Amino acid sequence: MEKELQQRLSSIRPLDEEFLSRAQAKLDKLTKPPGSLGQLEEIARRYVAIVENIRPRIQQKIIYTFAGDHGVVAEGVSAYPKEVTPQMVYNFIRGGAAINVLAGHVGAKVVVVDIGVDHLFEPLEGLVIRKVARGTGNITRGPAMSKEQALQAIFVGLEMADRAKNGGADLVGTGDMGIGNTTPSSAILAALTGLPVNQVTHRGTGIDDVALSRKVKAIEKALEVNAPDPKDPLDVLSKVGGLEIAGIAGLIIGCAGHRIPVVVDGFISTAGAMIAVALNPRVQDRLFASHQSVEVGHQFMWEYIGQKPILNLSMRLGEGTGAALAMSIIEAAVKVLNEMATFSEAGVSEASR
Amino acid sequence: MEKELQQRLSSIRPLDEEFLSRAQAKLDKLTKPPGSLGQLEEIARRYVAIVENIRPRIQQKIIYTFAGDHGVVAEGVSAYPKEVTPQMVYNFIRGGAAINVLAGHVGAKVVVVDIGVDHLFEPLEGLVIRKVARGTGNITRGPAMSKEQALQAIFVGLEMADRAKNGGADLVGTGDMGIGNTTPSSAILAALTGLPVNQVTHRGTGIDDVALSRKVKAIEKALEVNAPDPKDPLDVLSKVGGLEIAGIAGLIIGCAGHRIPVVVDGFISTAGAMIAVALNPRVQDRLFASHQSVEVGHQFMWEYIGQKPILNLSMRLGEGTGAALAMSIIEAAVKVLNEMATFSEAGVSEASR
Repeated sequence: MEKELQQRLSSIRPLDEEFLSRAQAKLDKLTKPPGSLGQLEEIARRYVAIVENIRPRIQQKIIYTFAGDHGVVAEGVSAYPKEVTPQMVYNFIRGGAAINVLAGHVGAKVVVVDIGVDHLFEPLEGLVIRKVARGTGNITRGPAMSKEQALQAIFVGLEMADRAKNGGADLVGTGDMGIGNTTPSSAILAALTGLPVNQVTHRGTGIDDVALSRKVKAIEKALEVNAPDPKDPLDVLSKVGGLEIAGIAGLIIGCAGHRIPVVVDGFISTAGAMIAVALNPRVQDRLFASHQSVEVGHQFMWEYIGQKPILNLSMRLGEGTGAALAMSIIEAAVKVLNEMATFSEAGVSEASR
Repeated sequence: MEKELQQRLSSIRPLDEEFLSRAQAKLDKLTKPPGSLGQLEEIARRYVAIVENIRPRIQQKIIYTFAGDHGVVAEGVSAYPKEVTPQMVYNFIRGGAAINVLAGHVGAKVVVVDIGVDHLFEPLEGLVIRKVARGTGNITRGPAMSKEQALQAIFVGLEMADRAKNGGADLVGTGDMGIGNTTPSSAILAALTGLPVNQVTHRGTGIDDVALSRKVKAIEKALEVNAPDPKDPLDVLSKVGGLEIAGIAGLIIGCAGHRIPVVVDGFISTAGAMIAVALNPRVQDRLFASHQSVEVGHQFMWEYIGQKPILNLSMRLGEGTGAALAMSIIEAAVKVLNEMATFSEAGVSEASR
């Protein structure tokens, strides 16, 4: 299984510089001062280079929201009880959650993947059941999961990327649901970067100072007990990660291999993206950073990945909500490239420099 | 005419706090941690309070792009020749400009208003001709326009707000076209705030260091020659402003009076918003700040107005492009309020605090 992952990782090509410059040349002919659409131009350029098509169309957008539970919730690190994970999965399926509203607004489909919820779901339209375990172990006492489980969860993500490719998706978004999952996300960030735990740990869904201090201690203990090897992303993922985080990492790797642009959501999704980038740095040019979360550690994650977030709306919800909103901006950027008139077509004079 | 403007200004009500708290109470019942949608929640709350309807729908969006020319272009303050103003108006009408693409993307209509272009247009579908003058005077030598002309241009904007109301618009955006118009915008900013000209003047469509230094000197001279009274917004507008800026100020005032939320575009539109706010501070809660422009002075404008920009995409194009993109975020916020399930509807447990 690890060998097959290596094959998937090595199938990721570096971004084709030729497409970046062709896209830029096209952008500079459009009726606007050169560079005046700022980040939209960077997005359009990179979208072209990822899909290797100078005239791309975004017709199908899909968000995969991976749900999993976390043993560390027993340490009192979240404001919500563990039961909320399956309750929210039902809410996603019925269409009542923020991700449903925001995905609907931008015209994206939502697929929910049970990758590790501690609840047995009946078959439900819109829910893909690929349960690797009924939640992770309590990371303050031992590893979150075995290496085999981590690989299995990554392969669930790879499978979703394959489905996206076969279904003709032009843009994929990541999403998460899992009470307690900012805790393993902060742990991954601290483990991979060496940053102090108290600098990368924040209030998640909204814990008070007492719970925040418990959360910092739980992460410090998890890193001490498990001693994840910062040079081995799979070791970090399996020891202090989460099943949905592994699924997200797999989805990102799979999309990078298939040349499907992938929009990474908030703090939890970006922890998954860090694992993907740690496994193969070529991933970093093939993803888009949806937004800057309120979680203080999120900025360090984007720095690690080397992408600038598209939005900064003080959001901290996850589910794929940031990815959904950013998808609309990415689509706008691609439309600019395709639909604007050039100076010569429009008979507009160029700059006198 | 000034008396009628005073009547319009005094018809603007303060925001109804009751609607703000009712909207917040509704947001807090939805299946998400309280406050976790950040700025979207602030937007939804304020939208509700502006329209005084707890269940608003955004069905019709319209952007008014005002076009005018500027005598100060003779001083070499722009990278583009003056002819580009009418050329771009034709481009808007034919649908080839960035504003057409981005408005189309978010489902907004674009209406172009010739309020002062130095070109005689034939009647064109989508163009409203309300020419007050064939461009402004060169502000380094005298006033941009007479006070009567400034009032007349404001009334063009008020008329567009009336049209928006009669047409049933739920969200209005501002936009501008006018080669040279960052120059009067910086002049207005400097005049109203007293900030030094070199701190609020930037590269516009993309001038080099030599032209930037000319531009700073031109603005300093304009302020010296005209000595606009910072306590008299109409004096500032007529002496160092622009016809499209006056139209935008009028549109914003009119929308505020009609309780139509108005999204203010970039640097030039925000100069118009400053004039509107200076005429009646109640305007400031009734507008949305679309984005943070690359123009260095723009942040000071938003500080003056007291609104936080929704987007920050390093854009500097104008036309209403930032307003268009922000409209989609505002619509998303309103949909969250209307379409999400509550904790009790979805059977989701609330936080254990």
